[in-house]
Amino acid sequence: MATLIVLYGAPRDAVAFDAHYFEKHVPLAKTIPGLRRYEVSHGPIGTPGGPAPYHLIATLTFDDAAAIQAAFASPQGQAAAADVQTFATGGADMLIFETREV
Amino acid sequence: MATLIVLYGAPRDAVAFDAHYFEKHVPLAKTIPGLRRYEVSHGPIGTPGGPAPYHLIATLTFDDAAAIQAAFASPQGQAAAADVQTFATGGADMLIFETREV
Repeated sequence: MATLIVLYGAPRDAVAFDAHYFEKHVPLAKTIPGLRRYEVSHGPIGTPGGPAPYHLIATLTFDDAAAIQAAFASPQGQAAAADVQTFATGGADMLIFETREV
Repeated sequence: MATLIVLYGAPRDAVAFDAHYFEKHVPLAKTIPGLRRYEVSHGPIGTPGGPAPYHLIATLTFDDAAAIQAAFASPQGQAAAADVQTFATGGADMLIFETREV
């Protein structure tokens, strides 16, 4: 499998972020071809030493890295990426990697 | 569910890191009580703009945040955390959060 993790920094307005994220971005992102699972963090994000500098973490699962590349290149992926720019006022870091269970 | 993500920065010696990680750390971490799934990145870790500053990303899944707290407090969890200090020469950032599927 392959994973796309999106780490959203603390937005200027958390209520507006959440409204946009769950009402507009999730339905849009769920149309991306090849998406197998879509999980979001629920509640606070911590570290062993205290709060993490992130508001929300999304984990999107695809079959492999090629499927993530194809997803980014698709019209639906491009629309989702463009949408991120409209609400991620605290930034959005993305990490892409293949995974295996150990 | 709840997730513990461990982001390992580039180590001084990647070959030594991988040998220790897969031969010693994984078997140790798999003894942590409450661990439901343990996935590691396989191959390079990227971002939309190029390589990410991480060598390996581990994703450990538990039932909930309380189970992660209990895991850290367990002798097995403390042994695994102590082991990280012996091989993570590029640092290890941890993120802990509950998740839900959307």
